[in-house]
Amino acid sequence: MKIVVIGGQGTIGSAVANHFKKKHEVITASRNNGDVLVNMENSESIKNMFEQIGKVDAIVNCAGATKWGPFAELSEEDFYVGLRGKLMGQVNIVRIGRHYLNEGGSITLTTGVLADDPVYGATNSAMANNAIHGFVLAVSQEHRNEFRLNVVSPELVEDSAERLGNAFPGHTPVSMQKVAKGYERSVEGLRTGEIIRVYE
Amino acid sequence: MKIVVIGGQGTIGSAVANHFKKKHEVITASRNNGDVLVNMENSESIKNMFEQIGKVDAIVNCAGATKWGPFAELSEEDFYVGLRGKLMGQVNIVRIGRHYLNEGGSITLTTGVLADDPVYGATNSAMANNAIHGFVLAVSQEHRNEFRLNVVSPELVEDSAERLGNAFPGHTPVSMQKVAKGYERSVEGLRTGEIIRVYE
Repeated sequence: MKIVVIGGQGTIGSAVANHFKKKHEVITASRNNGDVLVNMENSESIKNMFEQIGKVDAIVNCAGATKWGPFAELSEEDFYVGLRGKLMGQVNIVRIGRHYLNEGGSITLTTGVLADDPVYGATNSAMANNAIHGFVLAVSQEHRNEFRLNVVSPELVEDSAERLGNAFPGHTPVSMQKVAKGYERSVEGLRTGEIIRVYE
Repeated sequence: MKIVVIGGQGTIGSAVANHFKKKHEVITASRNNGDVLVNMENSESIKNMFEQIGKVDAIVNCAGATKWGPFAELSEEDFYVGLRGKLMGQVNIVRIGRHYLNEGGSITLTTGVLADDPVYGATNSAMANNAIHGFVLAVSQEHRNEFRLNVVSPELVEDSAERLGNAFPGHTPVSMQKVAKGYERSVEGLRTGEIIRVYE
């Protein structure tokens, strides 16, 4: 398969890209480096990326900004960091990317455990993640015969545990290998409309 | 109790307002009529409303626009109808309204069954509704000792069944009385962080 991994230089994205490279042709896309450049918050940029790389068999997105901070300290504009980034960035990848999929192709998005367990400061992430879960459910049904659409929701991952662990009390980090397997299940499996929770 | 019902002129809002009027002082707020005027998409307008009515014991919101239409026909801007309306409109009501609550006060938001069963054309609603579910979970935890925050997610309601029923295959409309009881549970009960599904 020819697979584009957006956010392929990030903590999760690089593990996912390396996993798929064992068996597939992988193109990494990122805002600042990678094989191609893309700003997922800009529809024109997403379109330009696909025009450069052509049709693919799978689109995997591991990128998307949210605003961290307690609710009481978030301004109205702060909420739009996650709404334009992790939410509409991923919506736009589906809106545009579906036209660049080969037959039988799939799109895999990323949310995270903060959808189900919003720790202190995670309001914006919880909103964007749950919105994507609803989006995947809705869109996968309307396009069941055209492409598959899933989302992987990872726990805190091992490679982020040292940096972020204190913000996730009681969470046991999952291995990068297990998380990569979640994406593999979406890309190489048959499911559509699934929220693939990789929580243990 | 002194209760403000935003969207108090709508199908659900008017039923909820009438239900609470039996036992409480109810102020209805709406974009075009009601006891006070408010545009929930405008933070200044929300603030003005609360300055007019003063502190309340409960804030109930039954309003919030979303864009109806199949995913393939939605433009990028179309998605923002629900993100600015049903999502950020309700976020702003909580952001601002919490400063106008008496001790022991509560805020009750509204989503709907499209969060869990996005029928054809409901992508934007599914996103906004699920985002609000995540928001309520996150914010209720951070502010557990200050105010209660719940959301009522009604099925298709009887008073909308004739107009909307065809879009909801297999859905059995719920009575306005049952829906009003969902809001009562939030306002007069003890719960916080609950998604009160009134589906049957």
